[in-house]
Amino acid sequence: MRRIVTLLYILFILSACADKINLNTRMVNTPEELEVAIKNAEAGDNIVLANGIWKDVRIKFIGEGTEDQPITIKAETPGKVVIEGVSDLKFGGKYLVVDGLHFRNGYSPSEAVLEFRIDEKTIGNHCTITNSIIEDFNKMHRDDTDLWVQFWGRHNTLSNSYIAGKTNRGPTIRVDLEGNESINNYHQILNNHFGPRPPKGGASGETIQIGNSFSSMSPSYTMVANNLFEACNGEVEIISSKTNFNEFRNNVFYKSEGSLVTRHGNYCTIDGNYFIGDGKNENIGGIRIINTGHWVTNNYFFNIKGKNFRSALAVMNGIPKSPLNRYNQVTDVVVAYNTYINCDSPWQFGVGQNLNQEDVLPPSEIRSARPIRTIIANNVIYNEKGDASPIIEHDKADGVTFKSNVINNQGVDFKAYEGLEAVNFGIEEIGKNILIPSSKIDIEPYQGFEFENISTDLVGNPRTDNNSIGAFTNTDFKDPNILDRSKYGPSWYSAEAEEKEPKTLIVSKAEILQSKIDEAENGDIISLEVGNYEIQKSLLINKRLTIQSADKSKVVLNYSGGENSPLFELQPKGFLNLKNVTLKGNNSQYAFASLNENMFTHFGLTVADCDISDFNYVLKVYKESFAERITFENTSISNCDNGLELSEETNDLGDYNTEYLTIHNCRFSNVKSNVIDYYRGGYDESTIGGNLLVTNSTFTNCGAQEKNGILINSHGIVNVDISNNTFKSNPVKLVALLWGAKNNSHSDNQINNSGEIRVEENLEMKLLY
Amino acid sequence: MRRIVTLLYILFILSACADKINLNTRMVNTPEELEVAIKNAEAGDNIVLANGIWKDVRIKFIGEGTEDQPITIKAETPGKVVIEGVSDLKFGGKYLVVDGLHFRNGYSPSEAVLEFRIDEKTIGNHCTITNSIIEDFNKMHRDDTDLWVQFWGRHNTLSNSYIAGKTNRGPTIRVDLEGNESINNYHQILNNHFGPRPPKGGASGETIQIGNSFSSMSPSYTMVANNLFEACNGEVEIISSKTNFNEFRNNVFYKSEGSLVTRHGNYCTIDGNYFIGDGKNENIGGIRIINTGHWVTNNYFFNIKGKNFRSALAVMNGIPKSPLNRYNQVTDVVVAYNTYINCDSPWQFGVGQNLNQEDVLPPSEIRSARPIRTIIANNVIYNEKGDASPIIEHDKADGVTFKSNVINNQGVDFKAYEGLEAVNFGIEEIGKNILIPSSKIDIEPYQGFEFENISTDLVGNPRTDNNSIGAFTNTDFKDPNILDRSKYGPSWYSAEAEEKEPKTLIVSKAEILQSKIDEAENGDIISLEVGNYEIQKSLLINKRLTIQSADKSKVVLNYSGGENSPLFELQPKGFLNLKNVTLKGNNSQYAFASLNENMFTHFGLTVADCDISDFNYVLKVYKESFAERITFENTSISNCDNGLELSEETNDLGDYNTEYLTIHNCRFSNVKSNVIDYYRGGYDESTIGGNLLVTNSTFTNCGAQEKNGILINSHGIVNVDISNNTFKSNPVKLVALLWGAKNNSHSDNQINNSGEIRVEENLEMKLLY
Repeated sequence: MRRIVTLLYILFILSACADKINLNTRMVNTPEELEVAIKNAEAGDNIVLANGIWKDVRIKFIGEGTEDQPITIKAETPGKVVIEGVSDLKFGGKYLVVDGLHFRNGYSPSEAVLEFRIDEKTIGNHCTITNSIIEDFNKMHRDDTDLWVQFWGRHNTLSNSYIAGKTNRGPTIRVDLEGNESINNYHQILNNHFGPRPPKGGASGETIQIGNSFSSMSPSYTMVANNLFEACNGEVEIISSKTNFNEFRNNVFYKSEGSLVTRHGNYCTIDGNYFIGDGKNENIGGIRIINTGHWVTNNYFFNIKGKNFRSALAVMNGIPKSPLNRYNQVTDVVVAYNTYINCDSPWQFGVGQNLNQEDVLPPSEIRSARPIRTIIANNVIYNEKGDASPIIEHDKADGVTFKSNVINNQGVDFKAYEGLEAVNFGIEEIGKNILIPSSKIDIEPYQGFEFENISTDLVGNPRTDNNSIGAFTNTDFKDPNILDRSKYGPSWYSAEAEEKEPKTLIVSKAEILQSKIDEAENGDIISLEVGNYEIQKSLLINKRLTIQSADKSKVVLNYSGGENSPLFELQPKGFLNLKNVTLKGNNSQYAFASLNENMFTHFGLTVADCDISDFNYVLKVYKESFAERITFENTSISNCDNGLELSEETNDLGDYNTEYLTIHNCRFSNVKSNVIDYYRGGYDESTIGGNLLVTNSTFTNCGAQEKNGILINSHGIVNVDISNNTFKSNPVKLVALLWGAKNNSHSDNQINNSGEIRVEENLEMKLLY
Repeated sequence: MRRIVTLLYILFILSACADKINLNTRMVNTPEELEVAIKNAEAGDNIVLANGIWKDVRIKFIGEGTEDQPITIKAETPGKVVIEGVSDLKFGGKYLVVDGLHFRNGYSPSEAVLEFRIDEKTIGNHCTITNSIIEDFNKMHRDDTDLWVQFWGRHNTLSNSYIAGKTNRGPTIRVDLEGNESINNYHQILNNHFGPRPPKGGASGETIQIGNSFSSMSPSYTMVANNLFEACNGEVEIISSKTNFNEFRNNVFYKSEGSLVTRHGNYCTIDGNYFIGDGKNENIGGIRIINTGHWVTNNYFFNIKGKNFRSALAVMNGIPKSPLNRYNQVTDVVVAYNTYINCDSPWQFGVGQNLNQEDVLPPSEIRSARPIRTIIANNVIYNEKGDASPIIEHDKADGVTFKSNVINNQGVDFKAYEGLEAVNFGIEEIGKNILIPSSKIDIEPYQGFEFENISTDLVGNPRTDNNSIGAFTNTDFKDPNILDRSKYGPSWYSAEAEEKEPKTLIVSKAEILQSKIDEAENGDIISLEVGNYEIQKSLLINKRLTIQSADKSKVVLNYSGGENSPLFELQPKGFLNLKNVTLKGNNSQYAFASLNENMFTHFGLTVADCDISDFNYVLKVYKESFAERITFENTSISNCDNGLELSEETNDLGDYNTEYLTIHNCRFSNVKSNVIDYYRGGYDESTIGGNLLVTNSTFTNCGAQEKNGILINSHGIVNVDISNNTFKSNPVKLVALLWGAKNNSHSDNQINNSGEIRVEENLEMKLLY
């Protein structure tokens, strides 16, 4: 695409040099001038936005360019034209290009920031967004759904752009196919850098979604190629392919928590992609397969530790005669010439099998249809440490044929499969994250039906001569430098994070505390001198900040603010790390709270070595607020009406308020209710959050006013571990009610006069779909 | 295709003439020789089957021809090579041609008569069956499923063949797509004559089925073009398209009871077909639309009187989030440039809407999803007699857009629709069944999205200049002679029925009756002289025959045959027309019965002006027997333990034993049970049989031993009419229990001391799917 764009420039310059250089190029300074320029633009025209901040601008880019002479809106200097405020841009017509814009500090007033149509009748075709940025352009409320780029029509392109920071509901990019105008679309999503998308805390946080179940029968032919997906952690699906004939080629999925999922639709090609994990994080996955006829070839998986839905290759069970929006059976899938290095149990079949839930789910939710006519051939597995179960069968893999696969399992035993041979081959690191067999593995590749169409390997070497199994046909090539970020996103922007030395700001008086907080920059430290701080108004935190003292017994923050006001107000982008201080309230306020409104992006909270007492709530997380992590360590919490409350997501759409809630080595005493109240409603089999860890802590005389009689409430939370705690004289019926079918566990707790921990295998949940 | 075949012949002859005429052509006389010849055949070889009857031959045609040099098996003289007995033919390999064979008097021992694969590994590609006949090649039992031509692989062809008479379970032709080897198949079904397929009496009687719901996501690209479908009455779907991208072009559907149905799968093209009804038969339908993205263009509908599921254009409601095997919503369908002449309510929307069955059916059976994004444009309706409802909305057509359609409704009022204009245009008959507007209708055709792709009209005129609405752009062309049967099927065979004058054979003695029956030919008449005929053995009927006398009071057949033996044994192809005779038994036998076994094709029975008494059963129709019509008229039935029993299809798969059971002007007295017992089990919303008509008849003292207390049993029969009868002193609870939701009715009956007729709206039925 870059080449095409370059070519178009050259063509433009050539034609411009000829006789109409000024006619063709029009500099505009205001939205009104832009509107006029668009109205008058003809094929070949170039509209240049003057450098500066364009605020609250709604661009309807309607025009008729031609293949040779597109109409272009471009920045005077790429990156110096910033779109802020309540802004969006929509295309209608054809051969229109937008080049070099930067969207930040704002949000779209419509359903999309960039959209390839004006309305149902005025659709963009052959239009391009390139060399641009969309960053943190979130709606004010998490539940307010939008998209950042919404594809309609045909032959549209998003290329060389950097897109990061979406936290509100809705996929970052979505291709829509409703209507014959938008099928057979051949859209291209190329050379982009998809930067961090933090966990959304529930569904609808995909980075790319192509179609939906209602258009899953439509031919799409969308191409997603040569993109870098970095920390795209929004939800379990990084890419959710829901239509037919899509292609995913040569992308890099780097430390992204999720998978590329063929959720609906059929006959996709997933070829030559890199899936790079960190060797620890179990949320980082690979490819999850549902439906018919996909070809998964030439992919490279490194250090993927995801399990089950998130395993390197997860082949699901379907629902017999599935409803349109659920799980069709896997049939006719080919997985060939892939390489798996240091992945845990990389091949999992029958994922999602849930026959043990027949009593609590309707038949139309039981995934009992095993994959059929599926071929796994010519793949290579290498494990530095042997893996006792490289293949996991959640249901019998009797419809799967294995041919000419090898594994170096370091001699560790595993269940034998015909077609998976243990071979002792060496491995060589040819670049960061890239390990390949150090010599050719002497196994004849299996020639399945139409395997001759897999004509090259991951790096483009032909498979005609000297073919071999695995993603790479030979060892004689250079590091592909997959993380060279100059290959992705805009040419004028580097997404490499700058390293900055934190400053420490000393504070000794309450009066200047807020102004020092305001003065501090991201990552700085506020150091509190010894003393009592009488705080009368909430401290507002909207950046990454550490506030600490040397001795909590001598640094006390006495809060005398209004009823139900928080001592620390955690605003969007407010990440507070509080260490070694004492917080005291008058029993009517909150120690920490998120905003009740307009919590347009994430916050975070770590409290360590603190004493907290005499508040109404220790922590109140309001609806639509989300923190990736909330941690309390080595902290005592006492004499509060309520403890940690994260239970306002009661619309039961699968949302929750924090990904990780960690309580370690804390002491709770005389907290009357909501001691820990962490809620997720709505059943969705594929999401694996949130996470509650309660360890090495003591709970005494807590829960006296807890209406449901449960001390630690974790309804619907998927991962819960309650271990090594002491529960003493808490007047409750249950310490906790755990969900056995999910990853809930408890161990080594001492429980005296506090009820018990109960585990129920299946909780009754409202179905999401 | 003909041209290609001709070309191949020329190529063959040219190469044969060169130097290897004898090497290339090998005459074979026995199956063993054929097997050897196939084994040794090379590209370009020609294997010639010697004329004669080849019995019990199983041909595995395995070979590797080339595009230029196929391997051919052909008849010495086309049509003189007859395959009989237990025989089949399977292809494996490529570029193989079978030419000029005639399959009759037998059946396949396998799942198909002709199959384009040997087994899962040995598949035929680029293979052709041409210039051949398959006729009455039925399995011995109706429930024994098979296919007559089963497609696998890719690029296979069935052309110029005549195929008729299938009565057992299973589509006549089926295209299978399971496995990547059989998708994108581009099979061709061209220039065939599909002759009569009688009603099967239940599901699975399609003439062509392409795929099934489990492969409904697969791209198929099967072409069905230039075929004649004549009296293809097997079931409600003549063609059941169940995969994607199929094309149906320029076919003629002539007096065929059923429709072309896009049952599953999407994006089919239905262009330039003729649907010809007889102006009376409501079973003759048009096109029924389900699913997404079909284009219905340039079709011509004449005299179609089908209603609801069988209307000329039936656009169905779907089931929201339908299960895979049920009804997806209709979306993105285009119906443009079609012509409807003298069709009753040709456009019906929301067909299958069944919200009133919410109490008796599960939600996954309720068709409440109306068509959306559907365009009906540039169509012409002409009604010789005005139609009060040219459009019927079974559910609101609010997702349907009408543009530039016209109707000549002879001034008769109808509900107004924007986009359907009443215009008074003339009509002209340019050939049999072909009526077109006599002058151009002055309406600008609507130009919808991609309408420019509808580049020609029904007869191939370009739509670029002088375009007009309707199937024909101008009136200046010749009769297309769509029923010229020389255009379809084998060149050596004429499917035109011969007219033959019936002979009358006089019989005066019981002893010669069977031999005269044997001597008679199809359509002949046996005339019984006055006298008493003592019949000791069943009379076997296996042809179309009339047996009659001049005076029933003087012609009495006294049957003394064994217990439970029938006086008339109705064998396959036995169609008995009995007139004006008296039948008497000894109370232990049957008057009429089908075969208990091997009823491999239909029978029929008409009894008029007869007296029947003293039998155990008057009529016993055994399981898997089927008659299109069974009629009793002006006949008295008395003193029998049982009456008419057609109730053995108890596996509840939707089967039944006769399409039309008609009782008119008859007198039943002292028939103890099964007076009329006609059963169909299993619920299938789209089938519209059977048909029970009971009129002007008298029932006296009947039903005394009927266990369920119902005199006339019609469980599951869709069309029932009980009118103008007299029921007197029948010791039953009910005369009949009718199904209100279906087409069951009663009127003007006199009921004395015989219970009542009850109508229940919804009967509890076992779901078929």
